Amino acid sequence: MGALDLIKPAVLAQPAYTLAALESVRKLNQNESPYDVPEALKRQIAERVVEQRWQRYPEFVPASLLAKLSAAYGWPADGILVGNGSNELIQATLAVALAEGDVVVAPAPTFSLYRLLTNVYGGRYVPVPLDAEFRWDVERFVETAVRERAKVVILNSPNNPTGTPLPDGTVERILSATDALVLCDEAYQDFGGPSSIGAMAGNDRVIVLRTWSKALGMAGLRFGLALAQPQVARELAKAKLPYNVNLATLTAAEVLLGHEELRRANIGRIVASRDRAFVRLGSIPGMRVYPSAANFFIVRFATAQPKDVFRRLHEQYGILVRDVSSVPELRGCLRISVGTDEDMDAVEQALRAIL
Amino acid sequence: MGALDLIKPAVLAQPAYTLAALESVRKLNQNESPYDVPEALKRQIAERVVEQRWQRYPEFVPASLLAKLSAAYGWPADGILVGNGSNELIQATLAVALAEGDVVVAPAPTFSLYRLLTNVYGGRYVPVPLDAEFRWDVERFVETAVRERAKVVILNSPNNPTGTPLPDGTVERILSATDALVLCDEAYQDFGGPSSIGAMAGNDRVIVLRTWSKALGMAGLRFGLALAQPQVARELAKAKLPYNVNLATLTAAEVLLGHEELRRANIGRIVASRDRAFVRLGSIPGMRVYPSAANFFIVRFATAQPKDVFRRLHEQYGILVRDVSSVPELRGCLRISVGTDEDMDAVEQALRAIL
Repeated sequence: MGALDLIKPAVLAQPAYTLAALESVRKLNQNESPYDVPEALKRQIAERVVEQRWQRYPEFVPASLLAKLSAAYGWPADGILVGNGSNELIQATLAVALAEGDVVVAPAPTFSLYRLLTNVYGGRYVPVPLDAEFRWDVERFVETAVRERAKVVILNSPNNPTGTPLPDGTVERILSATDALVLCDEAYQDFGGPSSIGAMAGNDRVIVLRTWSKALGMAGLRFGLALAQPQVARELAKAKLPYNVNLATLTAAEVLLGHEELRRANIGRIVASRDRAFVRLGSIPGMRVYPSAANFFIVRFATAQPKDVFRRLHEQYGILVRDVSSVPELRGCLRISVGTDEDMDAVEQALRAIL
Repeated sequence: MGALDLIKPAVLAQPAYTLAALESVRKLNQNESPYDVPEALKRQIAERVVEQRWQRYPEFVPASLLAKLSAAYGWPADGILVGNGSNELIQATLAVALAEGDVVVAPAPTFSLYRLLTNVYGGRYVPVPLDAEFRWDVERFVETAVRERAKVVILNSPNNPTGTPLPDGTVERILSATDALVLCDEAYQDFGGPSSIGAMAGNDRVIVLRTWSKALGMAGLRFGLALAQPQVARELAKAKLPYNVNLATLTAAEVLLGHEELRRANIGRIVASRDRAFVRLGSIPGMRVYPSAANFFIVRFATAQPKDVFRRLHEQYGILVRDVSSVPELRGCLRISVGTDEDMDAVEQALRAIL
């Protein structure tokens, strides 16, 4: 008997989430913001962190931060959970809901962590394909959730890696057609598409996740939040580890909540760069760019091999994008994050030269 | 159908992990170090953090940090996982091992998170009482693990909240008597008792957890690690979230690894204060102090009500300890963390006055 006999078969069968570290000049592979937190703010945050006692655990419930988040998101403080990135809140939701064999319905393709965690928790993962244009096939999605008696339905909007927003009213349709918990992962909603926060008031089966890793430039410090009805938040909290958000991140979040203008400016710049790049990349012969409400694009090549394009972008032009071409629905595709206008011009010129 | 019907019954039945925030002059309720990281080091760490790009995700695998940890712990880098506190690594271990109904055997009383997470993951938690002196009843522990066909055996040594170290050779006995995965939580091992790192070389069913939240004064930044055979570490990593340790904590860990003298000095001071306090507290009539290999004590009152003593310590003396008296095995008891000598003298005087 060895240790591997003690690991659940569903875990052993699961490929690990991995990402090779490659150096590059233009890093457009993780949908990060091209804009760092301004140095003056970083110094202000660092100073406040240094003043605190590092040997003490962070607050068990960060009350003053929750009050500020409540004002910012228009949702009661006791219905807000903070997480070490929103990934932790995906994990908590699946952990408290999934018993052996329970079904999770999610779009395909989508963020790979949903499948990984469903398998770890013994659930059954049922992907519903987007249509050929990567739009949500709402009919099919609802039908599948009903037929499979989904315990949890995951909606990622705008969907990663396709950028497609959920059509208005989808959450309400799913709520009325099913008895499922509806997890709305809005990691990219700052950049476009409808939010499901409005659907939460009337129904306690909706959980909305937001992250500061994208529009707010906090990927390095990790901060996410879940909004839910307070009685649901209380249950999710049981699968969240105590003291999971450290004092540096709590401090940064408090300071940044006082700088809403920064978030708005970053979103404005990134959306403008996205819309500008969509037109320019769209005019390159030999590839197609799919419309996106997020801060990334899927591009599909007519004949070029995506692995070749990926390699040449990296080796010849110092541009790192995400090779998603091993995902069945994304054969022939790469995903490119939106950087600065200069980044996107470099991508355009490189792709024109390669194709 | 409401959301609470979708939460697993075992989760609903589980009380949440909570801790009321009380202000106090002497905070002796969470087994934290009384010694902060020195300000010069905090400033050096803060400066390095400010220099980094916050909008980028932390390294997927922090290779240079793992190399340093490998040297410090004498264990291969590919068998080390870093976590957002060691709690996250307890969670990952239980998540990958426990299918519905699998048994976890652990001491009683012990750290409450083991039971909480076992229930969240659908396992069955089987506590084995320590003896009347809070010593490990190794016979009974092994018998129970064998009889219950334990999937996971958790050894917390020195055990929280009793401070009792595991007798030498226990891990080897459990390994040979059972087929279980043996999770050795050594959160407090810096302060005393044997380590199970030696038992890992010959058997891949041992996982050892360490934390920097206690001896290293890093509770506020959260840093823990798991040591396991590399093929086991690879499976545990699947239940750990990507980018779970943020750039501030990774930076602090790298800097502090260069200051082993600090860790040694802190441990030396805390152990000396513990041993000094044990004698002094032991001479107070009307209560008993149990010996401890960790940085805290269980004290039991002959006739005084622990809730009264807790309240008076807090209200009259500004001393905050942990009320553990609702745990069946700890009726009549409080847990007191070891602070500075001055803290412990204040505790002694207050207890003499109260009792």
